[in-house]
Amino acid sequence: MALRHYTLDFNLSAAVDSASTVPGLLSLFHEQELTETVHDTNGHGYLATFVGKNGRFVILRVHSHGLVTIDLQCYAEDNIAQLDNLLNALEKKLTVLLNGNITRIKRLPALVRGGEIDRYWPTADGRLIEYDFDRLVYEEESAYQSIKILHSKQFGNILILNGDVNLAESDLAYTQAIIGGGKENYAGKEVLILGGGDGGILAEVVKQKPKMITMVEIDQKVIDGCKMHMRKTCGNILDNLTGDGYQILVEDCVPVLKKYVQDGRTFDYVINDLTAVPISTEPEEDSTWEFLRLILDLSIKVLHPSGKYFTQGNSVNMTEALNLYEEQLGRLSCPVGFSKEVVCVPSYLELWVFYTIWKK
Amino acid sequence: MALRHYTLDFNLSAAVDSASTVPGLLSLFHEQELTETVHDTNGHGYLATFVGKNGRFVILRVHSHGLVTIDLQCYAEDNIAQLDNLLNALEKKLTVLLNGNITRIKRLPALVRGGEIDRYWPTADGRLIEYDFDRLVYEEESAYQSIKILHSKQFGNILILNGDVNLAESDLAYTQAIIGGGKENYAGKEVLILGGGDGGILAEVVKQKPKMITMVEIDQKVIDGCKMHMRKTCGNILDNLTGDGYQILVEDCVPVLKKYVQDGRTFDYVINDLTAVPISTEPEEDSTWEFLRLILDLSIKVLHPSGKYFTQGNSVNMTEALNLYEEQLGRLSCPVGFSKEVVCVPSYLELWVFYTIWKK
Repeated sequence: MALRHYTLDFNLSAAVDSASTVPGLLSLFHEQELTETVHDTNGHGYLATFVGKNGRFVILRVHSHGLVTIDLQCYAEDNIAQLDNLLNALEKKLTVLLNGNITRIKRLPALVRGGEIDRYWPTADGRLIEYDFDRLVYEEESAYQSIKILHSKQFGNILILNGDVNLAESDLAYTQAIIGGGKENYAGKEVLILGGGDGGILAEVVKQKPKMITMVEIDQKVIDGCKMHMRKTCGNILDNLTGDGYQILVEDCVPVLKKYVQDGRTFDYVINDLTAVPISTEPEEDSTWEFLRLILDLSIKVLHPSGKYFTQGNSVNMTEALNLYEEQLGRLSCPVGFSKEVVCVPSYLELWVFYTIWKK
Repeated sequence: MALRHYTLDFNLSAAVDSASTVPGLLSLFHEQELTETVHDTNGHGYLATFVGKNGRFVILRVHSHGLVTIDLQCYAEDNIAQLDNLLNALEKKLTVLLNGNITRIKRLPALVRGGEIDRYWPTADGRLIEYDFDRLVYEEESAYQSIKILHSKQFGNILILNGDVNLAESDLAYTQAIIGGGKENYAGKEVLILGGGDGGILAEVVKQKPKMITMVEIDQKVIDGCKMHMRKTCGNILDNLTGDGYQILVEDCVPVLKKYVQDGRTFDYVINDLTAVPISTEPEEDSTWEFLRLILDLSIKVLHPSGKYFTQGNSVNMTEALNLYEEQLGRLSCPVGFSKEVVCVPSYLELWVFYTIWKK
């Protein structure tokens, strides 16, 4: 049983006295049988709370600097039309009472708290975002991470790992960006995919008939969820761990990369689709950045001299994180060059940076 | 001076008694010198409010059905680190107290209420969305609408008309979609643009050397704002109302369309880029739908028999509105066919439907 939390705020061009606004509102609260408590704020404006039937709770604050805020909390199964009417009446009444002094009226969509389906998944740059999720289709706690697949009316099913939106069925733009934006020819090439458990990259690249694609994904439960619920992304490619031109190793990529380095194996393309904070069975470095650099260094070591390394970066707004990443690129055992592209991935609701890296 | 509103919610697998949780938290509130009021909820769980220094206000609710909600309101210039610490301490303490019973912990980015820059602009399908707006660059109340241009770090400047996100400088995808998705050849053609005051369509279509583009935009103040602040969208095309291959009529499109119908003028392309609820100096129809149909009908009348009419629809989630629109298409004075496409417009943060309409 979720709590619906409504807010209604008035920005004013000048401070108002609670005496000129509050008495005019009280009749509305009393009609709704709300019981009032006025709190002492030590000079920080007027603050009253109102408790009503069915667990309803209202806060009225006339702040001392030209802002009036109203909160209304009720349960989801309450009479929502009645509460909408109360908010409408409060908005109308306050618009009259504050006449000529209002610079903004803001009434946001209700925040749904404790709902069965969690619709709030902030962006990488920390903004509050409500998704149109209507059902949870897969949920597993694997040995490595929390895995959820939720359904969005507009984006299709969407994979969320440890609370981060990873990929939706609508997000071919992500896959296209991380395989080089349509400018590469994979025919006859050796390709290594790190992570990529949703199968999107594998499904796209295999179409171009590379010599061999090796995908190293640590988490069988990601593969299991995606092959069932993300078929617009992976098609049938995850149904078998080996197939014509590809193999999937369900392993930690760090030892696999080390073995490849030892054996002197190289790849024409290395595509790093690991999570932002990569997971390993043996994270031998303390800091995330050092661990990221380890994987990057190993990847560059297995990259053919004329090969390309593709990876996602971060939100274009995360300037500092992107700069730090680019600093790491300057600290590898082999000098590299890089370019980046900003791409709109539909379900991300923020622009995303992708990197192309090559050996100098 | 904005109010920061934090929420911290615990979903539980079973209801808990406030007696088992509240006493363990009170010391944290008392450390912060918060004064407690316990409210009678008539059997709807435990509800306490706490007033502190600097206008701080906290609500603690232990709902009777397995949900604990905490609200913390403070002013933007308060000691945010201290309040973060309080929330961290509350989260940590409650995680221990509710041990084994927690199914979800949700702590959202703070809602900023009454902020100087309004960052909350819900989607067409009514979801709460926080944009990364950091400054207001243009604001006018014209005779027709409220015009705002806000700056987004990732999307560039963004035009908002009557509270609806219209177009950002990042949104070439919108312009490309509404001119036919790159599949049309405008060379030598007669083109009519309805609305389009941001200049995006005009700037793109003019590149293809049509015979003549006539753009009919009612609001000079939209043109003024966009030619100054949306130059990534319009380039220099709005600097003059006439130019090589185009003319801009700053007029209501309804009488213009009527005149064209009367004169028997036709166009190879009619591009309707009016706002969702179009504005006219003489809205002769009562309902928005009838008014929309009037414009649609007039547009189809001036469309060459082999011409195409392009327009935006709505959010792909607004199924009912889209169905109603398609119903209108069946009620025109001339039978039409249509197709639609779903497009990701970066700044919209929801997928958008575009229509192509033609005479049967």
